[in-house]
Amino acid sequence: MSENTPGDRYLEVIPIGGMGEIGKNMFAYRFENEIMVVDGGLAFPDAHMLGIDLLIPRIDYLQQHAAMIKGWILTHGHEDHIGALPYILPRLPKVPMYGARLTLGLLREKLSEFGIREQDVDLREVETDARLKIGKHFTVDLFRMTHSIPDNAGYVLHTPIGRVVHTGDFKLDERPTDGKPSELGKMTQAGEDGVLLLISDSTSAERPGFTPSEAEIAENLEAVIAQAKGRVFVTTFASHTHRIQNIIYAAEKHRRRVIMEGRSMIKYAQVAQSLGYVDLKDPLVTTDEMGDLQDSQVLFICTGSQGQPMSVLSRLAFGNHAKIALHPGDTVILSSNPIPGNEEAVNTVVNRLYEIGVDVFYPPTYKVHASGHASQEELKQVLSLSKPKYFLPWHGEPRHQINHARLAQAMPHPPKRTLIAKNGDVIRLTPDDFRVTGTVPAGAVYVDGLGVGDISDDIIQDRMAMSSDGVLILTAVLHPTPHVELISRGFVKSNRDLENSIRKVALEAVENGMREKRRLEDVRDDMYGAVRRFVRKVTGRNPVLIPLLVE
Amino acid sequence: MSENTPGDRYLEVIPIGGMGEIGKNMFAYRFENEIMVVDGGLAFPDAHMLGIDLLIPRIDYLQQHAAMIKGWILTHGHEDHIGALPYILPRLPKVPMYGARLTLGLLREKLSEFGIREQDVDLREVETDARLKIGKHFTVDLFRMTHSIPDNAGYVLHTPIGRVVHTGDFKLDERPTDGKPSELGKMTQAGEDGVLLLISDSTSAERPGFTPSEAEIAENLEAVIAQAKGRVFVTTFASHTHRIQNIIYAAEKHRRRVIMEGRSMIKYAQVAQSLGYVDLKDPLVTTDEMGDLQDSQVLFICTGSQGQPMSVLSRLAFGNHAKIALHPGDTVILSSNPIPGNEEAVNTVVNRLYEIGVDVFYPPTYKVHASGHASQEELKQVLSLSKPKYFLPWHGEPRHQINHARLAQAMPHPPKRTLIAKNGDVIRLTPDDFRVTGTVPAGAVYVDGLGVGDISDDIIQDRMAMSSDGVLILTAVLHPTPHVELISRGFVKSNRDLENSIRKVALEAVENGMREKRRLEDVRDDMYGAVRRFVRKVTGRNPVLIPLLVE
Repeated sequence: MSENTPGDRYLEVIPIGGMGEIGKNMFAYRFENEIMVVDGGLAFPDAHMLGIDLLIPRIDYLQQHAAMIKGWILTHGHEDHIGALPYILPRLPKVPMYGARLTLGLLREKLSEFGIREQDVDLREVETDARLKIGKHFTVDLFRMTHSIPDNAGYVLHTPIGRVVHTGDFKLDERPTDGKPSELGKMTQAGEDGVLLLISDSTSAERPGFTPSEAEIAENLEAVIAQAKGRVFVTTFASHTHRIQNIIYAAEKHRRRVIMEGRSMIKYAQVAQSLGYVDLKDPLVTTDEMGDLQDSQVLFICTGSQGQPMSVLSRLAFGNHAKIALHPGDTVILSSNPIPGNEEAVNTVVNRLYEIGVDVFYPPTYKVHASGHASQEELKQVLSLSKPKYFLPWHGEPRHQINHARLAQAMPHPPKRTLIAKNGDVIRLTPDDFRVTGTVPAGAVYVDGLGVGDISDDIIQDRMAMSSDGVLILTAVLHPTPHVELISRGFVKSNRDLENSIRKVALEAVENGMREKRRLEDVRDDMYGAVRRFVRKVTGRNPVLIPLLVE
Repeated sequence: MSENTPGDRYLEVIPIGGMGEIGKNMFAYRFENEIMVVDGGLAFPDAHMLGIDLLIPRIDYLQQHAAMIKGWILTHGHEDHIGALPYILPRLPKVPMYGARLTLGLLREKLSEFGIREQDVDLREVETDARLKIGKHFTVDLFRMTHSIPDNAGYVLHTPIGRVVHTGDFKLDERPTDGKPSELGKMTQAGEDGVLLLISDSTSAERPGFTPSEAEIAENLEAVIAQAKGRVFVTTFASHTHRIQNIIYAAEKHRRRVIMEGRSMIKYAQVAQSLGYVDLKDPLVTTDEMGDLQDSQVLFICTGSQGQPMSVLSRLAFGNHAKIALHPGDTVILSSNPIPGNEEAVNTVVNRLYEIGVDVFYPPTYKVHASGHASQEELKQVLSLSKPKYFLPWHGEPRHQINHARLAQAMPHPPKRTLIAKNGDVIRLTPDDFRVTGTVPAGAVYVDGLGVGDISDDIIQDRMAMSSDGVLILTAVLHPTPHVELISRGFVKSNRDLENSIRKVALEAVENGMREKRRLEDVRDDMYGAVRRFVRKVTGRNPVLIPLLVE
């Protein structure tokens, strides 16, 4: 791309992930020959992506333009904003990467798990209100926004063609746990000076009103803990440092020692505590160190808010935790909502807890959880303060983006133009224009076990077919006398009659083929076709059929 | 069981299905040597029951006591109350089966699909307020209850030891579509005469307040239809005759012809219409008969309320319907909630509709659906009218049963005893006692394709394993020179290096085994173990491994 005359200058806004979806958030901004990157998150797979552990953004565009990347900023430490970095960073040049203390603390923990050394990256700790210069053209003015993790930031991006305000993930919590509310001053100032583009969090654009404050949830949690007679178990997102702080405060107030259970819960707590983000009277104890504490003197914070089978809460609910057994008199609080797709798993855990006879508290029946994302009235407040000329609803599926766009359209001074964008769209922004001018490769790379990108949609299709009807392997041995062996997995219960019939059908096809001296592939195909039709007819099923010929 | 003296007489209440779950409702009542059966429903599989189409109750107890069965009553025509009958009836003796007109109409349709002839069964049509004598000991007094399908009934069961009130599925709708509210007179009278046991619908025992009336939903639907400019598409449960009637009324009022799309929708509508349960000004038309109707003159009622991939709404949303393409200006209404487990599928459809640019309406954002089950205030009303001595919360998972029990316990005159029962519990009821005295076989029989009961949990386990990591088949051919062939499905993308390494590991194990002259099974096990360890180490995965030896 050639240098342009000033009048032709433009900013390219390129959502690499997180646009039209919730998860794997990542942005690239390009101005002339400089690129600035924001975040690098992962997403969790849909139910139909069988066996996939997680999804990371495709970074072809950044790899192709690696030399242009001048810097990287991280808005906060959630998985959907930094979780892909251990996979991505080794494939891109080392550039300054700016983030707040907790964000970098969580990232360092993650990088070290992957064996990425401190000298392989260029991490630079900044305050959430820092002003950063990236390359020649980008000035980033960070501002703190309240969310479900400390050290969360939005930013005003100053560029030669105008200002962009990006909210980051946020809610407008008037009573945040750390006493540090959103700093709306920079956004307000930008609004007065003129905002060319607003990029804002659409997650809860369908929810009317205001998202409850963390303080309200803390009060409700404390009320439940206050009336509990026996042990108390609380699960929440391991990364939700504010919530965990409030649970600790409530435990301390009611003279309960806090015990952490579950690897990810302990890991997050250690990082947050070592960096000064958790305020504790007494050191945390482990289950082994509990000693002779009474039931009324303990509170467990444990993993399992999503009903994950190996989590502490699931093991407690199913009675297979090595050290702890729940019993009537215990109180269990799920201070979390199931992420879409996990409803059934969480419901199963809740039912098991009821069956054990513990007292169970969960939203929405009990108000022991609130989202970290802004509801409609908060979104309107941001639109009203920033008064953008153009608007890009982000961090949401199409339903959230479009409802966010409608909110904007209903404002007294609506944006001149709103785009409902997709990952990979190249959005060109000038003082007078805002439109998609092209696309770059985008989408998800599947991570499965140790493999990154070695699973294709074909493979998922095969997994889908086998998950529904199993696999049936036909081995036809041709010499000396043709015969057929049958092995199945996940098909039907052993059934001698059915197996004999299938073998007979297969053998007939093989013998016919050999008599007619057909080519071996054709014989195999004949056997495949004959068995397939027969199995479908008599069982109503379509197992994945694998025909083998052995000469 | 021997005849007892009057003082020792008892009623056995045996939930065959529907207790501790939502689905496959079925009860047996036994008094001395007589059994009466209620309903015979199916359930839909959980996400982890891979490939299973549906679940039906195990009927071992009824088969073992077949000669005692004196009669069968059906409370209403929903799948979770009559859907298992085509599988069950052929395995039990022909006894009088009582049901209201629509219930039997829907059942007949179902039986004929399965090739069960009218003379194979003994269907007896009754009014929803009929009084039936079953065997020597059972008198059943049906009473109409409002629900999401017409002809829905509860009953008072008079037995020699006292009265049982069973609500059936219900809500207390004061403004039902057919103008026929719940008849609470018999329940009230029974309450005055003395109810020994109440069995009541727990589905929505966690929901405060009252469930909205169908009339309220009808008004909201009409408001959406009134303001629509282009075509209108509405999906709802095919069995929800009241809702469909209200949609038809709204269409007629706004001069739109009604077009039905989708096999199950048309089938239900035909049965309901032929039996006089649907009131229509103009005959329904098909898409082919639409002729030159304008967009503003048509309303489609179509399948797809659960995001089912082959349903009409899904095909419309994904742009692969053969005859109709959605476009901006169209209105789509989802007059239904996703059943637990279907949230993701419905969400995907909603997002696609937004992307197409149609106007989409769905609960809870828009109040275009209400449940057919009673909320807490209605449940309390039933408890208050029937004043039972004992209470059995039914039609719910443990969380619903236990919250229902708590509601009952908080009444001014709480039941003397409440049982949280499970399927298969034998609950003995006498004027002075109410307890579980034993169990009968219970649980689910899996239906998959044409197979009933030929899928075991082992097979589901294999499907689960293959759905996550695929299958890898190792064929070791021993003679003349040992070599190993590899075939995989659903494992990883073709990768020559990995395949060669696996083959090498397998061949080494085989050659070692042969050199040491080990038994063939041992050679196969060695190969299996070596490859399993190797694959786990280099890929982090555990595909289902199938080792074959060919001599």
